[in-house]
Amino acid sequence: MEKSSEEKGSNIVLALDPPLDDRMQMIKKAKKILESTRDHICAVKFNRHLILPLGLFSGVQELIRQAEEYQLPTIMDCKINDIGNTNRIIAEHYFKGGFEALTANPFVGWEDGLQPVFETARRMSRGVILLVYMSHRSAGEGYGRAFVTADNERAPAYSIFARKALEWKADGAVVGATYPERIGEISSILGRNVPIYSPGVGAQGGKISLCMKNGARYLIVGRTITLAQRPGRVAEKIKTQARVRVA
Amino acid sequence: MEKSSEEKGSNIVLALDPPLDDRMQMIKKAKKILESTRDHICAVKFNRHLILPLGLFSGVQELIRQAEEYQLPTIMDCKINDIGNTNRIIAEHYFKGGFEALTANPFVGWEDGLQPVFETARRMSRGVILLVYMSHRSAGEGYGRAFVTADNERAPAYSIFARKALEWKADGAVVGATYPERIGEISSILGRNVPIYSPGVGAQGGKISLCMKNGARYLIVGRTITLAQRPGRVAEKIKTQARVRVA
Repeated sequence: MEKSSEEKGSNIVLALDPPLDDRMQMIKKAKKILESTRDHICAVKFNRHLILPLGLFSGVQELIRQAEEYQLPTIMDCKINDIGNTNRIIAEHYFKGGFEALTANPFVGWEDGLQPVFETARRMSRGVILLVYMSHRSAGEGYGRAFVTADNERAPAYSIFARKALEWKADGAVVGATYPERIGEISSILGRNVPIYSPGVGAQGGKISLCMKNGARYLIVGRTITLAQRPGRVAEKIKTQARVRVA
Repeated sequence: MEKSSEEKGSNIVLALDPPLDDRMQMIKKAKKILESTRDHICAVKFNRHLILPLGLFSGVQELIRQAEEYQLPTIMDCKINDIGNTNRIIAEHYFKGGFEALTANPFVGWEDGLQPVFETARRMSRGVILLVYMSHRSAGEGYGRAFVTADNERAPAYSIFARKALEWKADGAVVGATYPERIGEISSILGRNVPIYSPGVGAQGGKISLCMKNGARYLIVGRTITLAQRPGRVAEKIKTQARVRVA
């Protein structure tokens, strides 16, 4: 990711979630968005928007090959949160399907939970990005909840998850751009060890400047780009905005 | 579910997760397991084991049609835990694909979280089953964790999730058979309003008798049946064991 970001001069991860349509139109639309934004992004994130209608080993393969052609790493945002055996099978499928990283929910725990995901990722030289604070309105109901810790103190879920990201050597942490103060707090726990991926600018209302200032390393941008008349132009504009803040 | 369970005289939900194989073999194997267990189960649960390699709208359709032919309801165990907009799209795909219910993780919260899933389910007359306590070894790391409640008291995550299941009018609650004492506690919160689905007997070590005695309504059984030499025989045996305990 670091290398791709430097080469492309961008820290924008495109969330390639085109609006619902018939399958052929979805592939066509997604290919067009990817083609027009390729010079302004450093990675592509997929979600179930494409996987479910197109199929991981059928339609989606065309898009993964296109991303590879552009030397853009691909991330599967599957938010893994099942039991260990199932998690391992899910991870193997996505990695065999060509994804270079996937997202996972630390709430599931380590033993017989996410441990097999990290092991599979290490074995196949892929990455695991943990959800630390999500971008939606009720994120506080879970991620912002005060937990009782092992030593009987109180700590918010996200601070416990950030510490797990360090302990488990995660390759990234997701923190919603809609909660810039959380990005700051989590960034102070993670330091430079685990980069923060921040979704939620644009359609969800997050502000690029605050987000970058508070410690986000990558911005995940979906609808603002995918629903635009000219996705390439919008991606370029966001890339420039985010770069100015980094500099 | 209630109707199917009565008609079939069974409270066994088959977790149709055949071992990894090439795609044609997987479909063949899954069809055979479904055929041989049809008289001993009341529903079929799918997970990513089949969805990812076969595709929701391609290979999996054969199996869903087979289940419909046997009048067996189908559950998609997708453990939804994304933002509202994505959750809605995931739910729509699975319901359009023929599933009659899906599973969701209450940790994600209500507003802009699971609310769109419940709304989509209601609109399409389908069900939502919430994870309340999972069956894996580190389930306690999240589901068993003490949360600080709104009135500054302490309560385990699972009791808060069980109350959400009541409040959100969930169609079921998942509680691992590997934690029979949790089934009892959660059952005393849910009463007869929300039936408990319990995975983890057999391969994961849960005991049928304790599980039923403590308040489980349905047993979810996967590997014990799918890896057996004679899946039908094993399903029949488990059905009988579980029925005795109910009577």
